[in-house]
Amino acid sequence: MGWQKSMLEKLAHTFQIRNKLLRQGLAECLGTLILVMFGCGAVAQMVLSRESHGRFLSVNLAFGFAATLGILVCGQVSGGHLNPAVTFALCLLGREKWRKFPVYFFFQTIGAFFGAAIIFAEYHDAMYDYAGEDNLLLVTGENATAGIFATYPSPHLTILNGFFDQVIGTTSLIVCILAIVDPYNNPIPQGLEAFTVGFSVLIIGLSMGFNSGYAVNPARDFGPRLFTAMAGWGGEVFTTRDCWFLVPFFAPFLGSIIGVIVYQLMVGWHVEGEVKDKKNKPGEESMKLNDITSKECPA
Amino acid sequence: MGWQKSMLEKLAHTFQIRNKLLRQGLAECLGTLILVMFGCGAVAQMVLSRESHGRFLSVNLAFGFAATLGILVCGQVSGGHLNPAVTFALCLLGREKWRKFPVYFFFQTIGAFFGAAIIFAEYHDAMYDYAGEDNLLLVTGENATAGIFATYPSPHLTILNGFFDQVIGTTSLIVCILAIVDPYNNPIPQGLEAFTVGFSVLIIGLSMGFNSGYAVNPARDFGPRLFTAMAGWGGEVFTTRDCWFLVPFFAPFLGSIIGVIVYQLMVGWHVEGEVKDKKNKPGEESMKLNDITSKECPA
Amino acid sequence: MGWQKSMLEKLAHTFQIRNKLLRQGLAECLGTLILVMFGCGAVAQMVLSRESHGRFLSVNLAFGFAATLGILVCGQVSGGHLNPAVTFALCLLGREKWRKFPVYFFFQTIGAFFGAAIIFAEYHDAMYDYAGEDNLLLVTGENATAGIFATYPSPHLTILNGFFDQVIGTTSLIVCILAIVDPYNNPIPQGLEAFTVGFSVLIIGLSMGFNSGYAVNPARDFGPRLFTAMAGWGGEVFTTRDCWFLVPFFAPFLGSIIGVIVYQLMVGWHVEGEVKDKKNKPGEESMKLNDITSKECPA
Amino acid sequence: MGWQKSMLEKLAHTFQIRNKLLRQGLAECLGTLILVMFGCGAVAQMVLSRESHGRFLSVNLAFGFAATLGILVCGQVSGGHLNPAVTFALCLLGREKWRKFPVYFFFQTIGAFFGAAIIFAEYHDAMYDYAGEDNLLLVTGENATAGIFATYPSPHLTILNGFFDQVIGTTSLIVCILAIVDPYNNPIPQGLEAFTVGFSVLIIGLSMGFNSGYAVNPARDFGPRLFTAMAGWGGEVFTTRDCWFLVPFFAPFLGSIIGVIVYQLMVGWHVEGEVKDKKNKPGEESMKLNDITSKECPA
Repeated sequence: MGWQKSMLEKLAHTFQIRNKLLRQGLAECLGTLILVMFGCGAVAQMVLSRESHGRFLSVNLAFGFAATLGILVCGQVSGGHLNPAVTFALCLLGREKWRKFPVYFFFQTIGAFFGAAIIFAEYHDAMYDYAGEDNLLLVTGENATAGIFATYPSPHLTILNGFFDQVIGTTSLIVCILAIVDPYNNPIPQGLEAFTVGFSVLIIGLSMGFNSGYAVNPARDFGPRLFTAMAGWGGEVFTTRDCWFLVPFFAPFLGSIIGVIVYQLMVGWHVEGEVKDKKNKPGEESMKLNDITSKECPA
Repeated sequence: MGWQKSMLEKLAHTFQIRNKLLRQGLAECLGTLILVMFGCGAVAQMVLSRESHGRFLSVNLAFGFAATLGILVCGQVSGGHLNPAVTFALCLLGREKWRKFPVYFFFQTIGAFFGAAIIFAEYHDAMYDYAGEDNLLLVTGENATAGIFATYPSPHLTILNGFFDQVIGTTSLIVCILAIVDPYNNPIPQGLEAFTVGFSVLIIGLSMGFNSGYAVNPARDFGPRLFTAMAGWGGEVFTTRDCWFLVPFFAPFLGSIIGVIVYQLMVGWHVEGEVKDKKNKPGEESMKLNDITSKECPA
Repeated sequence: MGWQKSMLEKLAHTFQIRNKLLRQGLAECLGTLILVMFGCGAVAQMVLSRESHGRFLSVNLAFGFAATLGILVCGQVSGGHLNPAVTFALCLLGREKWRKFPVYFFFQTIGAFFGAAIIFAEYHDAMYDYAGEDNLLLVTGENATAGIFATYPSPHLTILNGFFDQVIGTTSLIVCILAIVDPYNNPIPQGLEAFTVGFSVLIIGLSMGFNSGYAVNPARDFGPRLFTAMAGWGGEVFTTRDCWFLVPFFAPFLGSIIGVIVYQLMVGWHVEGEVKDKKNKPGEESMKLNDITSKECPA
Repeated sequence: MGWQKSMLEKLAHTFQIRNKLLRQGLAECLGTLILVMFGCGAVAQMVLSRESHGRFLSVNLAFGFAATLGILVCGQVSGGHLNPAVTFALCLLGREKWRKFPVYFFFQTIGAFFGAAIIFAEYHDAMYDYAGEDNLLLVTGENATAGIFATYPSPHLTILNGFFDQVIGTTSLIVCILAIVDPYNNPIPQGLEAFTVGFSVLIIGLSMGFNSGYAVNPARDFGPRLFTAMAGWGGEVFTTRDCWFLVPFFAPFLGSIIGVIVYQLMVGWHVEGEVKDKKNKPGEESMKLNDITSKECPA
């Protein structure tokens, strides 16, 4: 076993990346890959089995717990954002540096792209079987499969309501995440943040998933959409429904801003102020400081 | 980044509210908004998708985890009651001051009102699409949508059984919550109370949701009902079924009283007495005191 | 508030029961009431709504989380057995005194009886509405409602297979519970035992619920059955299917014995022996002792 | 009670096995038995009730939580692998000794075999009732029941895609498990690993279960398949679909290797290197050492 041990150490030494930002980018990439692979996998299973092996609830559960697992895999290294809108919110609040934002965004999109690619390979046979005799990968119509990867609006949805839908969804997500990771407001035991974020994603799917499939994440939507454009569905994935793809790409950032404002106005600034007020009274300082430092932003 | 940091501190200073009760009210408002937004959102998704994107189980899960998230968001500040019946029970037991009750009630109802408003905006297109050609927002009948927001009794239900239904539901909720937050009976690790309350709400929906939709919360029912009256459904939301709205408004308080009595008689006073008996024996005091103070009422 | 506080203390003093066994009995009674009320409530909701407000999965979830909540409510006082077969297993292993067994059995059955009574009241209107014009409470046939409260075998089941079904179910439950509460084998954080027992009950329902509804608990089955006999379904609840009621009454105890043997033979005695072997080596004693004493049997 | 206590101690002494590897094998056997008994039990319930008592989601939940319970039962003793592919991955990384691999593989397969046998007994009547008048246990066709125990590919699946399906599924599982038990990357509180592994299994079922039923575990598939061959389904369970059984037997090990590489390249080696870099700076050593040693591989 000595041989194995020394080889493992040599490998670890060879492949260790010492640039922190690159390491964080890779971790975000893997985390988002897991999110999209499991999430879109559940959509694929529901669609391709014509609901015999999963219904919308399964998709909600899968996206929720996929977020949890993705955060667990990469959280220690990169914080486990998995979502440019989350990175954006934390940058807005000064908890992450702005130069992280483009790097995370890039790697999250790459991860989502490859997550979709894995599901395409996983369900390759099922997808062509589903399409029927013509072996076509369609964006619209009864046998469309593009919706497995990226989100498309329901027929009833106007662009305006769709934009609002993405803003509300992201706002809700950001308010929940800010409460979970607020260093001045620590409601849950350390280590359970990933589960709680997963529940937030689950519940957004349960209550805001009917309009357009709750992307609330530019990387989760754009990466797989790019993949479908390249894998055979064609440019229609971008042009359909008046360039719908722009909505889940831009609206989440507006939701992010509103979420930050709502949480800070209603809860955040008050708890922060209270802690700071108390710090000036030396007697209670040590305990409170401990409370603050015991939790870092994990998601 | 210095610029961003100083601006954030200035904002925090400007918007910080130092009045504790107002801060708690705002927090309750946001928490109840989250509860109603996610909960009623799930009902909307089930009804408007004609059960393709959610069934009753999804609604149960959504209300349960919405309670969890609502408590997590505001629990540190206000205790995370989200429900006047819970505030009432804690006041009855002397754990909250009575002057909190009207303030919390008011802000919880406001939060529920706006939670309903957000869902109305979120599903605006879907709601008019569902109503069909006449674009009517109906309280009763096949295409009724008022039930998305407030609760209405099933056809089989008499007012008497409906009243009893709300009393039983609230009693169950209060017994569970009292066990979870009893300072003398600490069954779960600190920080998991919100999850356990969520499971209580989930299970009440699973087993007592068929009669009239388990409001068990005057604010959750009255706020959205007021919103529907103003948003186009009209006064019928109050008058229908012999003024049904009075039942989920008043019955929960009776359930609250019964819940307090049942829990205290069967469990609460005995554990309290035991702890107090032991305190008089100095040897065991320090350990037990620690047990008692380690958990404050979080929900 | 001084008036309220002194009245509460007076009440607490008046109603405090100092007899420990009676207090434990009362707690078990409330815990089992909660288990049966939520569990049978979910069956009632599924049956009476003709599966529109719940399916078998909802029933499984309800029984599982009802066990969790029941244990949380009474666990601190009585250990939260909720099931004579669990009490029996812990007595067999010498972890509870044998004189507790009849007391717990009695109070658990009383609790189950009243849990069923509450559900009968809760769904009184729905039950008569379901029965149709004749207003009959039937034990067998298409509109039978007795199965809401007690368990009855599926048509395909013979008595022999039914007996085996109850033995296997209880054995599985006991093996899981013993692993969870084994003082020498502490796999989960203190305070999460109730959740894990709930998952065990959930999973037994998911995988062993088709034959006869997984009573695996003499009190949970006999208490509600007695209630139905008295509430209008009549003696047929006892005589139907060759006195089926005897199976879920007696088989769980055999399952309890087998579960104890299987767990102890495969895992229990070995970890126990290992800990004891180590204790004799003084160096490691302190740490291991701490491990052992940090967890008492909670369920 | 003295009599009972001394007898229990005598029994414990008689049956205690002091050989550690045998004890670990027995524990793995019981753990895998629980996994397969509950998991295949849920499939049986779904199939035999013709989806009235469970759908694919129930099966996913059952396999997920069955993994959790199996790990909890045996984790303290054997690490709770329940899956030769997991043992293989941990051996590859030098965290388990290679001589454990064949022992664990053998006992896991034995456990899976008996888990299937228990479900065959549990649903004996239901299985013959389901088969119809001819009382045949069929491997293929409308009334086939072999799929309750082992996995068979969907009609749309080619062997190549099926192989890839098993590789992807196992890779995903291994990446998640490695993140959960990485001693240098400790994202979750000690004691919750079993639950997180359970969620991983659940989510693999939700998103990768449609092709061939997500065995991702050679023991879970081969043990029950052997049982069906002996219990009456015959050798067809091995020969059907071009000896499909070889795929879930061999593919998981390839997935295991890929999973180890992916996790180590993307996350593992970097966190390991960072910790080791810090250890060389004495100031931070003590805290980090504590982090590392506080968690051992539980799954």
